[in-house]
Amino acid sequence: MAVLSLCLAHGNTFFFSIMTKLIVVAFLLLHTSDSSSSSSSSAPGAAGMLEPLFQYIDDHQNQFVQRLKEWVAVQSDSGDHTKWGEVERILNMTAVRIQEMGGTVEFADVGTHQLPSGETVLLPPVILAEFEKDPKKATLCIYGHVDVQPAKMEDGWTTDPFNLTEIKGNLYGRGATDNKGPVLAWLHAVETYQAIEKEIPMNIKLIIEGLEEVGSYGLLELTRKRNDSFFADVDFIVISDNVWATRTPALTYGTRGSSYFFVEVDGPKLDFHSGVYGGSIQEPMSDLIALLGSLLDHTGKILVPGVTDDVAPLTEDERKLYDNISFDLEEMKSVAGVKHFLQDTKEGVLMARWRNPSLSIHGIQGAFSEPGTKTVIPKQVTGKFSIRHVPNMDPPDVERKVKAHLQQVFSTLKSPNRLRVTATVGAKPWVANLKDPQYVAGQRAVREVFGVDPELIREGSTIPIAQNFQEETGKSVMMLPIGGHDDGEHSQNEKISRYNYIEGTKLFAAYFYELSLLQ
Amino acid sequence: MAVLSLCLAHGNTFFFSIMTKLIVVAFLLLHTSDSSSSSSSSAPGAAGMLEPLFQYIDDHQNQFVQRLKEWVAVQSDSGDHTKWGEVERILNMTAVRIQEMGGTVEFADVGTHQLPSGETVLLPPVILAEFEKDPKKATLCIYGHVDVQPAKMEDGWTTDPFNLTEIKGNLYGRGATDNKGPVLAWLHAVETYQAIEKEIPMNIKLIIEGLEEVGSYGLLELTRKRNDSFFADVDFIVISDNVWATRTPALTYGTRGSSYFFVEVDGPKLDFHSGVYGGSIQEPMSDLIALLGSLLDHTGKILVPGVTDDVAPLTEDERKLYDNISFDLEEMKSVAGVKHFLQDTKEGVLMARWRNPSLSIHGIQGAFSEPGTKTVIPKQVTGKFSIRHVPNMDPPDVERKVKAHLQQVFSTLKSPNRLRVTATVGAKPWVANLKDPQYVAGQRAVREVFGVDPELIREGSTIPIAQNFQEETGKSVMMLPIGGHDDGEHSQNEKISRYNYIEGTKLFAAYFYELSLLQ
Repeated sequence: MAVLSLCLAHGNTFFFSIMTKLIVVAFLLLHTSDSSSSSSSSAPGAAGMLEPLFQYIDDHQNQFVQRLKEWVAVQSDSGDHTKWGEVERILNMTAVRIQEMGGTVEFADVGTHQLPSGETVLLPPVILAEFEKDPKKATLCIYGHVDVQPAKMEDGWTTDPFNLTEIKGNLYGRGATDNKGPVLAWLHAVETYQAIEKEIPMNIKLIIEGLEEVGSYGLLELTRKRNDSFFADVDFIVISDNVWATRTPALTYGTRGSSYFFVEVDGPKLDFHSGVYGGSIQEPMSDLIALLGSLLDHTGKILVPGVTDDVAPLTEDERKLYDNISFDLEEMKSVAGVKHFLQDTKEGVLMARWRNPSLSIHGIQGAFSEPGTKTVIPKQVTGKFSIRHVPNMDPPDVERKVKAHLQQVFSTLKSPNRLRVTATVGAKPWVANLKDPQYVAGQRAVREVFGVDPELIREGSTIPIAQNFQEETGKSVMMLPIGGHDDGEHSQNEKISRYNYIEGTKLFAAYFYELSLLQ
Repeated sequence: MAVLSLCLAHGNTFFFSIMTKLIVVAFLLLHTSDSSSSSSSSAPGAAGMLEPLFQYIDDHQNQFVQRLKEWVAVQSDSGDHTKWGEVERILNMTAVRIQEMGGTVEFADVGTHQLPSGETVLLPPVILAEFEKDPKKATLCIYGHVDVQPAKMEDGWTTDPFNLTEIKGNLYGRGATDNKGPVLAWLHAVETYQAIEKEIPMNIKLIIEGLEEVGSYGLLELTRKRNDSFFADVDFIVISDNVWATRTPALTYGTRGSSYFFVEVDGPKLDFHSGVYGGSIQEPMSDLIALLGSLLDHTGKILVPGVTDDVAPLTEDERKLYDNISFDLEEMKSVAGVKHFLQDTKEGVLMARWRNPSLSIHGIQGAFSEPGTKTVIPKQVTGKFSIRHVPNMDPPDVERKVKAHLQQVFSTLKSPNRLRVTATVGAKPWVANLKDPQYVAGQRAVREVFGVDPELIREGSTIPIAQNFQEETGKSVMMLPIGGHDDGEHSQNEKISRYNYIEGTKLFAAYFYELSLLQ
């Protein structure tokens, strides 16, 4: 840390910025080539305590990667309810692993769910698990999920998404970073304490679900039901279901909420030949295009009246948090492969992603979507879009406004077709208190493992349970990501680097220790 | 025909209309229950000549249906070039059948084709066939195609689209009416003359292709090349690749042309998570929605500047042709399952379908199109739409205007994404001369078999070769449909009725005879 102090004394911010980056790069290189040196932290007493844990993790990294490979091979895509059998399979594998480690597992029933089609389906259970309890210790409850987003080779993957493949230090596979890798890293951190016969300084509980990617059906109700039992002795809830914002490790203090909308336009009895009926029928597809086209303009501004009215104003304190993020606009353009973002500045882009609402149109179901040509007038089409909520937007209020807006636009089309707008998820945004002990422990643990201060960031995507846990249980909630900023969760070629996966396991082991010191 | 004359003498058009319908219904019932009586025509000498042919066709109808079942079982979907092996298989089956009947077959090579992806593929050949030639007879060249539109159970079929299934007199299956059924009906008409050892009064040639549904790649060039050889001795070209407009048999004197457009918007390197990047990226999907939304308004009016400038004005003679079409607006609403059409009158709807241009948006490739939810920002999306051309629109001119319009709209979006607009097909519209001998013979043949005058109709869909044959060879071209108005070609549950299939075979047999009398 001596070099860093010297730079600060110099007072040249450009020089400081360059030097900081060099230091970070030096650390990353150092950790990649010899990650066992990562315990060279300045935190008093920690090094000796943590060194054997880190050594065990380094020594067993191939075994940890192999276990991730086994988990990634399970196609637990929760977006398609016909594949929930695979979701149940990965939940069983998770339970077996916890039991092998001496934990107790309950498969908590979370009831049924009505699909947009009207069909009612039985939900996969949620795992509630715990390891042996010592009343003298504080209790940390870890949340994770083992379901994944859809993935197919045809989407443009360069490796089989369900066969974890290591290329140049990166582990490619669906779920590698979102969220099977981090869930395993937590289990491996516990396993490490057990293996070297060091007492885990916290009581550990686990909540592992299989429906996060579709909105954690039933989890909120389960949290409410178990507030006086499972959650009663929990002191902290920690979630590792997101990624760093840059190359620097991060702690996350906020997430956006989201609502997912289905805009169904239902017209003729059958799909028709556009030659036969084209020109005489008001086509559901052109109605839908007009409806979707009314949602936002080319600057990304949401055009649904009133939807952004409740967005919290930016305070000076909040604005300052953005100064310290080592986000490089040019590099991010290159990573994303775009000529420019909708905003011109680093702060503008970060705020657009983290603290401002957004609307994305995902696709259309029922229209012709395959390669080639088909001259069809689809009889029924369903547009799909979602809105990301930020404080202080209220999802039910947003849904009402969206529905009213779409009905209003539809009325101007004077269409003989039928419109049905439905919404799912409705997850609230979340913001945490940065003075909470978890954030102090998290910062210390990052310093232990990575030798740098973490960036304090928000997350643009939705982890609804962060807000739900905080609101329902009243407990402290923190998000402690280990995935890299370029992991591509939900995208083709999702990966986690071997470095992040293994150092992330060390981070979790160190975090147990640092958090226990604050009790 | 006595009853009909009586009605005409009565002079009450409402009564006439009702009576005409009753007569048609009576004929249809009669033919369904006892189609052998269909030769009760007033045309002199025809009945005796045609009766044995019709008897043979009635007696062998189950065999004819069985052969259609075998052909429908071949999934010769030409829209997907990876399935062209099945297109070649059905072409081989067709060739074998013609050879078994004593015809000679040439597989004419039509070269290669460049797909929108840039890949070059070898095209399936075109069958050029002929039966033994008598220089004293005129030569009729029959065109048909044995490829089909895509079809999957998931699209909403109630029976397997590739297993011809008879339900209440209807034969359901992809290609049943478009165009495998009619092609077989032509072959069966020839077979019938041969079986009862009656000399076919015309020389018969056949052109059978396997790429009609994607725009008959290579056929135009083949027609040009063989103009002085295969086509040199052809007097008439007949096409049965459309359907009646109502329950009344029809002759078709015009078709709309079409151009199929691909609007590709290409953005970020990868699909992104809408939570992570939503709000910071100008999404290809929202650009595409804006582009597609600029194409037409909710009245069906095409908004691309200048595209409709060249539409031929409606003459009084043309307008009068619409008076005689027994089109029932209420019934058609019920068949289509729509509350109202874009036009209020029978004539308005028919003109919209037959003689005015239209634009239909078929779908989007690359976006999320499956059931369920996926919070993706697709990196590249391709919108697909087509325009139906009518006289005197010029497809290359339309394509230029569409491309210029989309580029202009795209420029207003100030997008960092890349736009690429491509077009395929580019088929011209077609209108025939109603005084041509084929139309006289066609009207007589319809009277022989169905006992009514055919309606003179146009076809909203595109059969590009009608125009191409007429323009390139200078020969007379007629379209002689046998499919019912509710056959649902290109749709779910495509079918041909057993009645239309078998009576259609008789119509073709009678047509050979009637046309020969006019030489």
